[in-house]
Amino acid sequence: MPMNDTAALYGTLRRIAETVGRAEPAGRVAHYIPVLAEADPARFGMALAFPDGETIGVGEWRHRFSIQSISKVFALVLALAHRGEHLWTRVGREPSGNPFNSLVQLEYEQGIPRNPFINAGALAVTDELLDHTDQPCELMRDFLREESGAPDLDFDQRVADSEAAHIDRNAALGHLMADYGNLRHPVPQVLHHYVRQCAVEMSCEEVARAGGVVTRHGLRADGSRLLSRGDAKRVNAIMLTCGAYDAAGEFAFRVGLPGKSGVSGGIMAVVPGRYTLCVWSPGLDRRGNSVAGMDALDRFTTETGCSVF
Amino acid sequence: MPMNDTAALYGTLRRIAETVGRAEPAGRVAHYIPVLAEADPARFGMALAFPDGETIGVGEWRHRFSIQSISKVFALVLALAHRGEHLWTRVGREPSGNPFNSLVQLEYEQGIPRNPFINAGALAVTDELLDHTDQPCELMRDFLREESGAPDLDFDQRVADSEAAHIDRNAALGHLMADYGNLRHPVPQVLHHYVRQCAVEMSCEEVARAGGVVTRHGLRADGSRLLSRGDAKRVNAIMLTCGAYDAAGEFAFRVGLPGKSGVSGGIMAVVPGRYTLCVWSPGLDRRGNSVAGMDALDRFTTETGCSVF
Amino acid sequence: MPMNDTAALYGTLRRIAETVGRAEPAGRVAHYIPVLAEADPARFGMALAFPDGETIGVGEWRHRFSIQSISKVFALVLALAHRGEHLWTRVGREPSGNPFNSLVQLEYEQGIPRNPFINAGALAVTDELLDHTDQPCELMRDFLREESGAPDLDFDQRVADSEAAHIDRNAALGHLMADYGNLRHPVPQVLHHYVRQCAVEMSCEEVARAGGVVTRHGLRADGSRLLSRGDAKRVNAIMLTCGAYDAAGEFAFRVGLPGKSGVSGGIMAVVPGRYTLCVWSPGLDRRGNSVAGMDALDRFTTETGCSVF
Amino acid sequence: MPMNDTAALYGTLRRIAETVGRAEPAGRVAHYIPVLAEADPARFGMALAFPDGETIGVGEWRHRFSIQSISKVFALVLALAHRGEHLWTRVGREPSGNPFNSLVQLEYEQGIPRNPFINAGALAVTDELLDHTDQPCELMRDFLREESGAPDLDFDQRVADSEAAHIDRNAALGHLMADYGNLRHPVPQVLHHYVRQCAVEMSCEEVARAGGVVTRHGLRADGSRLLSRGDAKRVNAIMLTCGAYDAAGEFAFRVGLPGKSGVSGGIMAVVPGRYTLCVWSPGLDRRGNSVAGMDALDRFTTETGCSVF
Repeated sequence: MPMNDTAALYGTLRRIAETVGRAEPAGRVAHYIPVLAEADPARFGMALAFPDGETIGVGEWRHRFSIQSISKVFALVLALAHRGEHLWTRVGREPSGNPFNSLVQLEYEQGIPRNPFINAGALAVTDELLDHTDQPCELMRDFLREESGAPDLDFDQRVADSEAAHIDRNAALGHLMADYGNLRHPVPQVLHHYVRQCAVEMSCEEVARAGGVVTRHGLRADGSRLLSRGDAKRVNAIMLTCGAYDAAGEFAFRVGLPGKSGVSGGIMAVVPGRYTLCVWSPGLDRRGNSVAGMDALDRFTTETGCSVF
Repeated sequence: MPMNDTAALYGTLRRIAETVGRAEPAGRVAHYIPVLAEADPARFGMALAFPDGETIGVGEWRHRFSIQSISKVFALVLALAHRGEHLWTRVGREPSGNPFNSLVQLEYEQGIPRNPFINAGALAVTDELLDHTDQPCELMRDFLREESGAPDLDFDQRVADSEAAHIDRNAALGHLMADYGNLRHPVPQVLHHYVRQCAVEMSCEEVARAGGVVTRHGLRADGSRLLSRGDAKRVNAIMLTCGAYDAAGEFAFRVGLPGKSGVSGGIMAVVPGRYTLCVWSPGLDRRGNSVAGMDALDRFTTETGCSVF
Repeated sequence: MPMNDTAALYGTLRRIAETVGRAEPAGRVAHYIPVLAEADPARFGMALAFPDGETIGVGEWRHRFSIQSISKVFALVLALAHRGEHLWTRVGREPSGNPFNSLVQLEYEQGIPRNPFINAGALAVTDELLDHTDQPCELMRDFLREESGAPDLDFDQRVADSEAAHIDRNAALGHLMADYGNLRHPVPQVLHHYVRQCAVEMSCEEVARAGGVVTRHGLRADGSRLLSRGDAKRVNAIMLTCGAYDAAGEFAFRVGLPGKSGVSGGIMAVVPGRYTLCVWSPGLDRRGNSVAGMDALDRFTTETGCSVF
Repeated sequence: MPMNDTAALYGTLRRIAETVGRAEPAGRVAHYIPVLAEADPARFGMALAFPDGETIGVGEWRHRFSIQSISKVFALVLALAHRGEHLWTRVGREPSGNPFNSLVQLEYEQGIPRNPFINAGALAVTDELLDHTDQPCELMRDFLREESGAPDLDFDQRVADSEAAHIDRNAALGHLMADYGNLRHPVPQVLHHYVRQCAVEMSCEEVARAGGVVTRHGLRADGSRLLSRGDAKRVNAIMLTCGAYDAAGEFAFRVGLPGKSGVSGGIMAVVPGRYTLCVWSPGLDRRGNSVAGMDALDRFTTETGCSVF
């Protein structure tokens, strides 16, 4: 199949929606945050954005959900854009091989998180962004508005509040990093912004368009360069090896693309140079990845042949 | 030597002061808290209190210092007195075998600290006391005033402030415990009281007298019973096996008595039924115990034969 | 009670045998070694040996059992006697705070076991003895024969074979230590002798008499000095803080004496200068200590007042 | 550049050889095995094999070296071919995030190695192959002879002997797995075959040709199917996420291909469906990957655009 044939790709998305989207809902919704626990695992949406911004989609592809850990990709992009190489003195770029919030590894590594997509690493990214602006969440929101062309997208305050009330594990990570001298701003401030950025509400369509900055190797929607080609490649490599919590190997096998999942059931995936995908369905497997989302991406890469392997 | 012969014991203390107290100062003062780093390692004091309150001492036995972790013994005593067996659902009674503030072990044990004398365990004790009173530090201070007969003893606010500014490691412990459901009060509140109780200023004389409650198997200075005989024995056993950070074995060998040390250089030791000792000298060994203090207690038990072994 | 009154002590032992020895058997027998799993948890024996070798006992105090980890005390005594301080460059003297065979701690401590009573530490002791003799088990057996006055005591080959067939965990410990350069002899050789020494068969009477070398502060049964007084004190301190697997604190509280337990249900305890105790009953608690044995020692120290506390 | 243009690809290889191959040698040779420590870090060779077996190369591309951990790919291929899905009950497929031989993680995961490319995982693969044949090394050697068309390739006995003499860490891993019931054959037997398979001597040319089975999605050199397409994809995914020890993220970023490195300085990389690469240069970085090899592959994918990203 010619990989950029819009009609063919739309046919693929429709076939996926008809099988995956109508299957018996699988997995269970995230339960550690009350607001997320209310989600319906039967819901499903999927979108595909081309580099020029054209977007196609199926199912509830215009329904907004809190993007949760998908925001870690955008935070990383912004930190690289505004702070550059300095970030890598504070956070590694290797997969972690442990449950995503383990303190053991952070202590073993003396306060340097292994990558920007585990929670500790995301705190380091937020702290780094706080050296650039005291409003990192607004910076991200405005960036996402512009990239996705959706000037009304915003934070879901109810989600942010709900997460803030269940923040102890992340607070422990933050204070441990502070103890090792790897957080420069007050831990509560870093946590506040971290929780808030996870609560941005976007649809599959909007995520797919916003992710275009990575797909276009660092170019923004307006054609201006935000990241160097090397930095964009770096973001892709980190997504491929660290984007699916403790299931990076499974994700590489089944999807074979750089991607990032979130506990609200969203997954963003990138076919470098070609298009950005976003799928959403709230039922999660035991590692925190959307069951239907993984299945949909698996089918997509199998049918289109766009997998790495 | 008859072990309760006051004159003979005083002679022993004087000999110790002449050798240990005048030796070249050894060890280094605690450096992680600025105020403690100002201490002079050459200073030395030692006191012995009989069950009836009579106290003898040598050197700077009436100089006050912040008692730091010695306060953990008094907090444990008060928690047992006011909350009883419930405490043991939240904290263990076994030596830890790791540096005293390790998060690894706490995670491995799912938020249950191994004993009340490691920092995590002391936070659990403080949290337990907060179920009894919202002023646990004042409860302890008033208790120490009465037991030591020193109505003017109080907190050193400068020390408390200094420690509060270096609280990240303990905050990580507290939030991790909270994440496991093993702290009931807000972490900052628990930390506030924990830091404050460590900042009580007492002299060797006052500590030795206040420790009498353990020496008298649970009886207070006024003869009333605070702890059951079994609970007092429990406190002794915990001091013997867990009282010297990661040097419990060394302490058992050299001193052979239940004891508890603090990073300001104080050590309290108990000869059950006979007398309470307190020695102070700020120079610490690499495990955080007073060098001259350990030496003094070693000589004392060797000369008097009051060691366990 | 005058603590050395034979008739009174015998009365105490009889009362213990009547209550503890006749109670419903508690705990479960060691199951990881088939031969030990055949033991009857209802059996009970207890002996007390005075420094002059006079021994009294109750129940099955003359029934032989494989002494298992109690042998670690005798191996330590012999290593100190024949190799001296050098031992302490290879093994620590602090409680471990982890399940007794954890590799994690050994790796964290770079191959130096925390004390001679965890399995890794016992392997280091055996390796050290192999520098003195290529027959360390025979050295120990002959020593135990002489000290206990039982020239016929020997290894239970069936037990040794059974343990040798379940040696993987200890083999992992041994190879890890070898990797860190802390075993000098071939790992299989060290394991062979380690397993064999655990299989010495002795009765409560014989263990109590053999333990006299510690009780007499280093003097053998024939009055000759084997250990310095300091080394004997050291052995006592290690027994008190590390002798009961992961229940050192509980043992200190309930028994309040230096002691060492084994998975066959035996416990040896020392009242320094006064007498040696040995109790045996195969039912174990979850930490591997004899339930009836702990109970018997608890009652003994409570009734005689010989506890530390 | 048309990616299958032989002349153009040869030009690329020559440019790489001229810059990388002639650069000041970087990194240090593996030192834990005496034989490997004798290697010259200035040596360099690189080969590219097309699916039809045609092979081009530069530098010392016909010099043989012991393939070390590259053999883990072939062992995995053979285990999947002969034992199938059963393998995955015993070993995971996720990156490890720890130094490649850590016992801590193996204990944490109860004896199930995280992937087949860490040493513990390779032991599980060898054990699995031992259920298929009692000569797994000969099976692999014969397979490699046929695939590479080099009937004379064989083991370097001197290397095997040298590694066998430094096997303690792997022996600890093996015994720990055996303790958890995850090795069925005697540990020494498994270790023997593991060490031997690492000592196969091959040239870049031979490795590149032998790797064709993965590149051709499971088809052998003679066109017969060895692995299903899914299993071949699985091998690729594991190489991409786990093939470079603790530098999987760095490898993904710089090379962007499935690959596997060995401590003798070889790296095999796969461009699925297109060609197999092998580069060799003994100077290693601190994570055990060839410095010049990584550099060469980085330049190759940059110049040809065959990277994933």
